[in-house]
Parts: sequence; C-alpha cells; structure tokens
Amino acid sequence: MINNITEIISKKANKKELTDQEIDFFVNNLHKKIKKYQISAMLMAIKINGLNDRELITYHNAILNSGKILDLDEERFDKHSTGGLGDKVSIILAPILEAMGIRFWKLSGRGLGFTGGTIDKLESIKKFNTNYSLNTILKTDLSKHNLIIGQSKNLVPADKYTYSIRDTSGSVDSTELIAASVMSKKIAMGAKNILIDLKVGSGAFFKDLKSAEKLGQKLKLLGKKNNRNVYILYTNMNEPLGKSIGNSIEIKEAISFLKNEYKDSDLEEVLRKISTEFYIKRYKVSKKEANEKFNSILNNHEGYDVFLKILENQKVKIKDFKESKIFSPKYNERIIAHKSGYFKFKNLEDLGYFLIDIKAGRRSDHDVIYNHSGIDFFVKNGDFINKGDLLAKIYTKERLSKEQIDQFNQTFLILKEKIEKEKIILKEDKW
Amino acid sequence: MINNITEIISKKANKKELTDQEIDFFVNNLHKKIKKYQISAMLMAIKINGLNDRELITYHNAILNSGKILDLDEERFDKHSTGGLGDKVSIILAPILEAMGIRFWKLSGRGLGFTGGTIDKLESIKKFNTNYSLNTILKTDLSKHNLIIGQSKNLVPADKYTYSIRDTSGSVDSTELIAASVMSKKIAMGAKNILIDLKVGSGAFFKDLKSAEKLGQKLKLLGKKNNRNVYILYTNMNEPLGKSIGNSIEIKEAISFLKNEYKDSDLEEVLRKISTEFYIKRYKVSKKEANEKFNSILNNHEGYDVFLKILENQKVKIKDFKESKIFSPKYNERIIAHKSGYFKFKNLEDLGYFLIDIKAGRRSDHDVIYNHSGIDFFVKNGDFINKGDLLAKIYTKERLSKEQIDQFNQTFLILKEKIEKEKIILKEDKW
Repeated sequence: MINNITEIISKKANKKELTDQEIDFFVNNLHKKIKKYQISAMLMAIKINGLNDRELITYHNAILNSGKILDLDEERFDKHSTGGLGDKVSIILAPILEAMGIRFWKLSGRGLGFTGGTIDKLESIKKFNTNYSLNTILKTDLSKHNLIIGQSKNLVPADKYTYSIRDTSGSVDSTELIAASVMSKKIAMGAKNILIDLKVGSGAFFKDLKSAEKLGQKLKLLGKKNNRNVYILYTNMNEPLGKSIGNSIEIKEAISFLKNEYKDSDLEEVLRKISTEFYIKRYKVSKKEANEKFNSILNNHEGYDVFLKILENQKVKIKDFKESKIFSPKYNERIIAHKSGYFKFKNLEDLGYFLIDIKAGRRSDHDVIYNHSGIDFFVKNGDFINKGDLLAKIYTKERLSKEQIDQFNQTFLILKEKIEKEKIILKEDKW
Repeated sequence: MINNITEIISKKANKKELTDQEIDFFVNNLHKKIKKYQISAMLMAIKINGLNDRELITYHNAILNSGKILDLDEERFDKHSTGGLGDKVSIILAPILEAMGIRFWKLSGRGLGFTGGTIDKLESIKKFNTNYSLNTILKTDLSKHNLIIGQSKNLVPADKYTYSIRDTSGSVDSTELIAASVMSKKIAMGAKNILIDLKVGSGAFFKDLKSAEKLGQKLKLLGKKNNRNVYILYTNMNEPLGKSIGNSIEIKEAISFLKNEYKDSDLEEVLRKISTEFYIKRYKVSKKEANEKFNSILNNHEGYDVFLKILENQKVKIKDFKESKIFSPKYNERIIAHKSGYFKFKNLEDLGYFLIDIKAGRRSDHDVIYNHSGIDFFVKNGDFINKGDLLAKIYTKERLSKEQIDQFNQTFLILKEKIEKEKIILKEDKW
C-alpha cells in the first residue's frame, strides 16, 4: 500500500531506511504522480541523509531502467571525469584510443559552475556536430569512428529530469546521487569497461581523497552489480590540468599534444595511464608493450590523424579546417610575478569563478560563454619563479579592469618557503 | 550580491550558517523569484540541518513581516496546542476565559494526519461560522465576545505558503519551522500572553520530553525577542485527552464539561491550569483566588452561558440550537475487554490512523470527514479492568468490518503487571 509520497519523503528526512518498493515508487512516478517540489525535497533528504548500499543499488537500477539500455556485442570502453579546470583529456583520448583499436563513445556535457564542459570546448571548432540521437548512432555508420557527442535526449530520462532539479535546488553534491547519475548513463550506453577520473582537490567536488573514495567505492559497487568493469583513477585538482583553461584554447592544447609538440607532463601522465590501461585490458598485452604503443602513436602523430577523421565524421569540412582559426581572442593580458618565490594556486574555486567572470564558463544555463576567453599558465604548483617572470596570459573579449586583474592575482600565492610539487595521480583502484 | 538561491540552498544543505541577508532574501522572494521546488528543497535542508538561534530569529521575523501585524491596546491572551487526540481544550477554554473577563481570540486549524482540528469540531454545530476576515473582526463588534475562528487568508502569508509546501513534502516535523510557524501567527494576531500546550508522547509530534523542550525553548526565545510573554505547558499525549475523540462527540464532551456534568479529571486539570494561570497573569490575584473563580464558573454554569453567547455571536441561531442533534452517529460498536488486567494504550499513532480509517480524521486535504465518527473510551492508562467490561464505543457511518475491529483491538494492551497511571502535566516553563 504505497500511495503516499509524503510519507516516503518523511521517512528519508527522518533518517529511516526506504524499502525497495518505496524507492521504485519514487523513481517510477517522477513524471507522473509526484510533483516537482516533492522530488526536490526527496533529493535533498537523500543528499543530506544518504542512501545505504541496498537503497543505492535499487535507486540506481530504477533510474537506469527509466530509458533504453544498449546491449552491444563489441567491447566498448568509456571514461568519465568528475570535472575540474583545464580537463581536455577526452578530446585527446578519443583519437589515441581509435589509433589503438579501442572503441570509445564519449557522451559529454556542457560546462556548469566552475568546471568546463567537453561539448563547449569542441564547439570552438566550426561546424563540429555533437548533437546525435541514439537512433542515428545505431542506424548509420557514424560509429565507425570513436565519438564525442552530447547527452542524448532519450538516455536515462529519469537522470536527466532529477539532475535538472538538483542543479538548481542545492542537491548536486551528493555522493549517492552522483554515483547513480554517472553509472546509469555509462551502463545505458552499453559500455563494458568504464574508467572514472575522480578529481580530488580545491577545484573539484571532492576536496580530499577520503570523501572521493566514498564515491569511488559506490561507483565500483554499481558497476559490479551490473557486470561492468570499473577502474577508478584519483587525480589531483589542486591545480589546473595542463597549461590552458578555456574553451578554444584547450582545443589548441589538445592539438598540440596530439601533434607531439607541447605536452604538459601531468596531462601526459593521465593520458598515458588511461590509454595504456585500456590497451592492456583490451588486448591482454604487457605494460611495456602498451607504453610503446602509446609512444609510437604520439611520435607518428597517429592520434592527430585520427582526430581529423573524427572531426570529419562529425561534420567538419577538413579542407576548410584551419587550426589557427580556432583560437583568436580579442585581448590578452600578461600577468607578471611581482616577487620571487614558490608558486602555489590558492582555492581553485576562486579561479573558477574568475573564469566565469570572463565568460569562459557559465554560472547558469542561460549564461552565454565567449569561446576565446581563457588562461594560459606558465607555472605549476611548487615552481620557483623570479620577479618579472611571465606567470599567465589571460584572454578575453573585453579588456580586463584593474579590479579583475587584482581578483586574478588573489587566486595564487608566491611563497618564500619551498613547497613540494604535487603528484597528479593520487591513487588507483583497478578493474 | 545575493542573487543565487541555489547557492543559498547549498549552504544550508552543507550545514553552513546562513547570513541574515540570505534568509531575508529567501523569505522575501517566496512568491517571486524562487520556484516552489527550490522552496521545498530549502525547507527540507532546514528541517534536517536546523537553524541556530540567530538564523531562527531572522527567519521568524521575515515570515512574521510577510503580512499585517496587529498592534492592539488590550491585553489579549492566546493559547496553542501542538496537537493530539481528543484535545477539545480551546472549545471549553474560550467561554471560561470570557467568564473570567479575559480577552481570547483563538485562531484554529482543521485536522490533518492523526490530530484533530478545532474548526472541524466546531462545524459539527449547525451554522457555526469560523470564517471571518481580519477586517471584519477589527471593524465590527464581532470581537465583543471571545472568538474561535479559522486561519485568516491574510495572516502571515509566508507561513501559509511554506506550510502548504512542507505539508506534502516531508518537512512538517521541524522544530525550528514549527516554532516560527506557531509564533508568527500568534504575534501577528497581537496576542500579548501566549500559552503553548506542548504535547509529548506517542500521539504527539514529540515523543519525549527532551525533544519537546527544544521546541519549548525556541518558542520562548521568539516570544522574548518580540516582547511577548510565553508559558510552556508540557502535557502527556500517551493517551487521548478526555473521554471522547471525534468531531461532534468532542463538542458533546465540551458541553458536558461546561455544564459541570461529566468532567474527565485530566481534561479538568489542563483547563484549570491554563485558566487560572491566565487569570493570575491578568488580574494579579493569588492562586487560591484563581481556583475559586474557576470553581465558581463551573458550579454556576457560567462557562456554558457564555458558550451559547459565543455560538450566537458566530451565527448560530440559539433558539434552534439543540444539543441532542449535534451528535447522532449511524452505528455504534461496543468494545468489550476479552480478559482482565491493566489497560494501556499502545502507540497512539495507530489509534490516529484508525480514526482516519473511520473518517473521523483526514490523511490529506481532499479527504471528506464524517462528523459523527469517533470513539468514547471508558478506561485510561493504568486502570484495572475485568473481563467483559466495556472499554470503548466506536461510532461510524458504515458498520465496522471484523478487520477494522481487530485493527482497533491492536491499539491497546491488557497487561497482567500493574502499571502506573500517567501524569497529565509533565512540566511547566512559566511566563
């Protein structure tokens, strides 16, 4: 006799365990008997009071079953990042994996809050199309190449609806709700092997490894219950990943990487780790062989060649494609060290809000971004810098005000005491 | 720069303190910028994570200032019960206080969940009108008598709106939200001296004295900050108050009390306590004098005489008023003791849900009640009963099924071991 949603919400609000029937009733009636304001209250109660493992599995499976679940023969890989500053890994990874013979469909989102979105970045490339339905993917030859596309409308509709509510009612940062949201989309898309790049640090949802591990364990649990292999890579987000942050400027950095020109060492370590672990899993080779494969792909620019094929596959006319046109900001401002010492980013959230301020990111769905806004950093945490050194260049559409430059200068420290450089990979929880 | 309600909700969801400006922004934009699903999420976050005293005072004052606040010369008294089974105190108290020369306007609600509502009870009296606007009260001579009326539409609109959301989204049972809701209505109505009958036990929101005291302290705090005298009376709700539960049957019990015929001893103790404390506060008399006044009012049926005047004042035609017509149920079922022993109510919530089942109460606003449904109890906790004794009579519109009778028999125990009778007044926190 489950017919009173108010009683179900009250139970969770008062820290009582929900039955499987109650959870199913909630998820199955999201668009039906249950009002939006009741859903937001329930999600808030779940965010604060949590779900135990049984509740989480039931909730996740109900969300997953709200839409179509692909069941494909091929052994497809997927990768998800929990979001941070400067994360252009997917854009570089997709062509490298194709060069390795690994099938990879990446469904990506737009940026929101202080984290960027892969789709926004790719749309810096003129005509690049990320908007395909599941039907198109399944019924055309689009998937002959690795894909980077936006969220499909029909994919896990219950996740889409609950996320849109959570996003504007304060319950985004819930370990259990994030776990269910991430895994349901990966599983619905039919991925067999899923790597989660779980960001930890001041620029990430999870500020410390311990709270990130809680999410990691739940992602593994949901994967296991659905016969998927899950690999958790815990990476450092106390500084941006790579040199550039911003939409088109990150495409520029990705191309530079694929052409084996400038390669940030942390970015290379993450890409090497993910690519080789996928290659080992797929082809049962040794670590040494995998690394040699990765090196040879970079040395021979194979990744870049595939990147152009991916662009062409997703509607870019390659004969008109000019790298130099991708990134062309109106203004740039050079930031110079005002004293000597060891460089250290402060709270990356402040840097994220500065990026929103210069329209490189959006605070809400309605905000319009400027693709050429962004920052290049020429220093990393722990680097010693001399007074007068170039620290960063800021690219904008409008000239920066003195207040904005002051605000930017508040996002980092120059310290007398030597500080350690930080590791990029903090921990791994393998397949 | 408060413009993002999502960030404010997130703060409370993550157990951070809100600023006064943030709380004001929330309350002042309830009907404006803020969506209903954001309000329910915020109220849920407040229910679970609480408000500290400063936050509560700010929240309460913002709610209070959402509507008109009466500021009258007279020293008016008010009384509020947090709700329980069989609570007909207000109906008896209003005429007794008028007989004492004490001004008392009681704004009452309808029953919801397992607690009854004074307005539902009074509407068992044909033509009794409880629906008056504040304007009518202020601009006519209606208030020459003590009043028992329904919630005015214009009274504390922010409380009305938030309550309607909480009621169906699981955040009713919040100490802080209850405190703000109760006090804002009493203060807006201009009461100077406010007694709260705070119910404690299995039939009340608060199951134990300790959690009830938390609410009591917050009510006192909000009263003090607004220059009102607040008296907290903690009373026992492990058994119904008085003999009868149900709408018209409680009117019958109230009349019997006012006519000094049958008087349940617990009910008398509560009424004596409230009436005499009010009389002492109003006229600076001794406890002995106050008790003598109370006795003489009952002995002379003065309360009953005033009761008729109150009815007449609120549109009942006294010449047509027939007590015997108030209560006339279609069926009654006698419940007999199946063994000897000491009587004890189990969880009163179960009894409350039984009452909803026989239409004496409503689970949701849409439920239709049957005024003559109800129960008379002939035993109290701790009474020794013999097999075959009459325990209760259940009055209904439809004949009770065997299952319903079984369900009723599950609401009490007959124990071999002697158990103590329970005190009705558990604690007092005086003016």
